[in-house]
Amino acid sequence: MQAYFDNSATTKCDPQVVELMNDIYANHWGNPSAMHEKGVDAENIVRRAKEQVAKTLKCERDEIVFTSGGTESNNLAIMGAALANPRAGKHIVTSVYEHPSVSNVMGRMEELGYEVTYIPVNGFGALDMGALANAIREDTVLVSLMHVNNEIGALLDIEEAGRIVKAKNPKALFHVDAVQSYGKFEMRPKKANVDMLSASAHKFHGPKGVGFLYVRKGTKLSPIIYGGGQQDGIRSGTENVPGIAGLSLAAELIYNNLPEKVNHMYELRERFIEGLLQMEGVSVNGLVGREGAPHVVSVSVRDVKAEVLLHALEERGIYVSAGSACSTHKRAKSATLTAIGLESALLDSTVRFSFCKDTTAEEIDYALDVMREMIPMLRQFTAR
Amino acid sequence: MQAYFDNSATTKCDPQVVELMNDIYANHWGNPSAMHEKGVDAENIVRRAKEQVAKTLKCERDEIVFTSGGTESNNLAIMGAALANPRAGKHIVTSVYEHPSVSNVMGRMEELGYEVTYIPVNGFGALDMGALANAIREDTVLVSLMHVNNEIGALLDIEEAGRIVKAKNPKALFHVDAVQSYGKFEMRPKKANVDMLSASAHKFHGPKGVGFLYVRKGTKLSPIIYGGGQQDGIRSGTENVPGIAGLSLAAELIYNNLPEKVNHMYELRERFIEGLLQMEGVSVNGLVGREGAPHVVSVSVRDVKAEVLLHALEERGIYVSAGSACSTHKRAKSATLTAIGLESALLDSTVRFSFCKDTTAEEIDYALDVMREMIPMLRQFTAR
Repeated sequence: MQAYFDNSATTKCDPQVVELMNDIYANHWGNPSAMHEKGVDAENIVRRAKEQVAKTLKCERDEIVFTSGGTESNNLAIMGAALANPRAGKHIVTSVYEHPSVSNVMGRMEELGYEVTYIPVNGFGALDMGALANAIREDTVLVSLMHVNNEIGALLDIEEAGRIVKAKNPKALFHVDAVQSYGKFEMRPKKANVDMLSASAHKFHGPKGVGFLYVRKGTKLSPIIYGGGQQDGIRSGTENVPGIAGLSLAAELIYNNLPEKVNHMYELRERFIEGLLQMEGVSVNGLVGREGAPHVVSVSVRDVKAEVLLHALEERGIYVSAGSACSTHKRAKSATLTAIGLESALLDSTVRFSFCKDTTAEEIDYALDVMREMIPMLRQFTAR
Repeated sequence: MQAYFDNSATTKCDPQVVELMNDIYANHWGNPSAMHEKGVDAENIVRRAKEQVAKTLKCERDEIVFTSGGTESNNLAIMGAALANPRAGKHIVTSVYEHPSVSNVMGRMEELGYEVTYIPVNGFGALDMGALANAIREDTVLVSLMHVNNEIGALLDIEEAGRIVKAKNPKALFHVDAVQSYGKFEMRPKKANVDMLSASAHKFHGPKGVGFLYVRKGTKLSPIIYGGGQQDGIRSGTENVPGIAGLSLAAELIYNNLPEKVNHMYELRERFIEGLLQMEGVSVNGLVGREGAPHVVSVSVRDVKAEVLLHALEERGIYVSAGSACSTHKRAKSATLTAIGLESALLDSTVRFSFCKDTTAEEIDYALDVMREMIPMLRQFTAR
């Protein structure tokens, strides 16, 4: 049996999406900037894709900018907003447990002379909303927060955060990294006072190499990639038409009957956590109920190294992640697990299980069976 | 009959390439950063893709960085080299007729306090090598030149340019925008003193949304997109594995029997130009023989607006570009055509035909027939 529990790293592309991309490669392969009908045809595909994505966010078509993925979207949001609004101030607010595509941009902004305030989280990974309110100043140009934490599934109330941001400084821009949450939650950026929102197609059964940034109408944003002026000059470069069409179809598909899919994942998560908590020396990080994301379970297994557990599970066809897969193989201590105050003995004994709509109860039960059998054995290998 | 002559805007993706990407979407869809076998499998695909591309340039695997396309490659080369080498100086040399993905980055560098020298070209579009030599100074950090001009097919002798650059300042970095030439010429960046070289997959029958930058070993380069540290930290973000594999297969395929393909295109180009020059009031810009690129023909048709000609040809299934398709629909006066001193009456009467390996003599003859028939008629519509 195989059980893929690494959907937060990447999901399998939906076959319908691949089929659509094949059709575009065969029949609609013009350059959207070309003036002839093959160009207009490709341009129409990009326009319809923007409409399709806009529908899922109840926003307007021209508020969607396609990028090469979540990392670029986050870079564009942060650098682009700061550079375009120099008079708004040089202070940025973010959290202590952002994805590297945010936290490493913050490092770059600090090099450029920006001051960055990092909001702490509590032991369950919940952002300190009081600290957020206190952090926002007159010279705060941007607040960038993730919706769902990629390592433990902690969930931000973006409406509340948006209210706090705008109450303290209506001119401060609010960016939400929704890479782990788009396709898992209904989002209304306008209603939630969100000015920018990042997503990545391969996290919701779309193709790799494409993402989008929602940019609320009227938001001043500088490009970070300069060129032929495509996408209103915000993102130059020939549009990845097949990828863009693939993303938009994947978006439409994932938002069909979303509540059903999400309930399914929550039920699996509860079933899984219930089984896990019956095992000795096994604990789950973050909030275990519906206050957390439906698809991420962070599991600490005392006296078993994460890497050992990962490879042992892999031998049985079970695929998980050690911490987060997003930081390549060089695994520094996890910022998220450190931020929630996980005891240091468990920092290197924590793996992430992440589900998708296709995950089954059988896979959950199989994983539980294998872990029940395996963990006591693996503990014997661990030097005490 | 259909005749697609807009291959410099984009080419049709090779069906073998699409098939390979389908296989990857179905069977090798892991995240290359994941530690389990599905990740290692994807990582191996990326590594083999780097090897495959490296073979075409006779360079090393780890000298290839995958990007989202030619525009990003050019941005990374210029901004990345300048930012990484602040002590080398704040002077950059480029030409007057670069693609917007270079020229607009130069504009940005000027905003950042860099001085940019723009080397002129002669009436055939040949770069003034003497002016290049004179322009390079002790504080020149970077020279960025295109190999084949996208509008008229003018061809740079990159070996000679590389010699000149390094003779004047061995520390100045030399970047070549090879977006229009990779897959048309054998390139040996190391031998030619090229430190960085940009290419885009969809220009050589690969997928859209992916390109590469050759970065000579030892070249200091800053990222322009920050995140999880993929690709040695030079380009963060989950690798577009299907696109990368598609690019590398397209590269291998295009370099199979390259001289044959190039000869074929040169023969077509000669046949086409011979026919064109027999028409009254029709002229060809740039060098017409093998001193130009094999696949680009810039045609001025006196007293016919480019847009009118383009749409008239389109009615007959012939697809061309008005100037260059790379600058979206807003067509400012072409920098290239202005740079070669084209008389102003022809600036707006110039279209580009661009071929690929699959272009046929029948298509050429058809285009000539249609133009012979059509041009006198179109002239009647032009207000004198």
